[in-house]
Amino acid sequence: MTMSNAALPTFEIGLNALAAILNKAEAHAKAKKIDPAVLLNTRLFPDMFALARQVQIACDQAKNGSARLAGVDPPRYEDNETTLLELQTRIAKTLAFVKTLDASKIDASGEREITFPLGPKKGQMRGWDYLIHFVLPNFYFHLATSYDILRHCGVEIGKQDFLGAIPIKIT
Amino acid sequence: MTMSNAALPTFEIGLNALAAILNKAEAHAKAKKIDPAVLLNTRLFPDMFALARQVQIACDQAKNGSARLAGVDPPRYEDNETTLLELQTRIAKTLAFVKTLDASKIDASGEREITFPLGPKKGQMRGWDYLIHFVLPNFYFHLATSYDILRHCGVEIGKQDFLGAIPIKIT
Repeated sequence: MTMSNAALPTFEIGLNALAAILNKAEAHAKAKKIDPAVLLNTRLFPDMFALARQVQIACDQAKNGSARLAGVDPPRYEDNETTLLELQTRIAKTLAFVKTLDASKIDASGEREITFPLGPKKGQMRGWDYLIHFVLPNFYFHLATSYDILRHCGVEIGKQDFLGAIPIKIT
Repeated sequence: MTMSNAALPTFEIGLNALAAILNKAEAHAKAKKIDPAVLLNTRLFPDMFALARQVQIACDQAKNGSARLAGVDPPRYEDNETTLLELQTRIAKTLAFVKTLDASKIDASGEREITFPLGPKKGQMRGWDYLIHFVLPNFYFHLATSYDILRHCGVEIGKQDFLGAIPIKIT
């Protein structure tokens, strides 16, 4: 029950689940002869982000959230992915970055003030609040919306795909 | 940084945000002369749950998750809501129930095995894993999907509505 324990496995399980969902989307596109670019550009409403951007932001919540808690400047990624393969690379790059962080630094960040860009403004939150009330809900929002877009496109995925490889015993 | 601190404020902020989002949906329906029942019955794909069920399940994740961690049998709700007002009552009832729970019992549940129904089967997880890798992702999934359905219907809500009254200072 530490900060790093609430953050790092969550990002790892969630991003691996997202990667597996995108693999199912790719198989679906192939089977139905759909151009995968159509999926990447699908959005649920004209002024919502399309799938590709949802995946990029999910990655950025994991990358930026964990980096700021660890007291490290997060690397900036280009947001130039236009294919499912490039999105998979983005996810893999994010997972690899998150693994480089010092868990003990994250554990010590609960009471520290975290300042982070928020559009043209800046947000400031206590480390624990930042993780629990900003990073995790945002991370899950973009994960769930990626899932919802693909479900809306007819990709056959279920709640288990969203939850991913969680430590559960089913009997 | 306790279990109850990861659970209780999250449910309170999230459910209050959901209630406010449903209020905006009601105002939207009134302004556009849409029968609110249409919103409640909207789903993103034929075999996904409609809005009303998404709201019920978001409530149940908060109710059942926090009750099981506190070692209390969760009350069963009827799932018979058919109006926005009834869904608001469901949310209020859930918030009131969550407030009755003993936070110290939840704090002591990190290592305890939690057994919970999972369709026709049973799931078993350590308390901490149950909260972080099952209850919270499911809670946010149904919150985000409720939001996505309403955005898809044209209701004018934004990320701030989804996050709700989080402890943030914006400068």
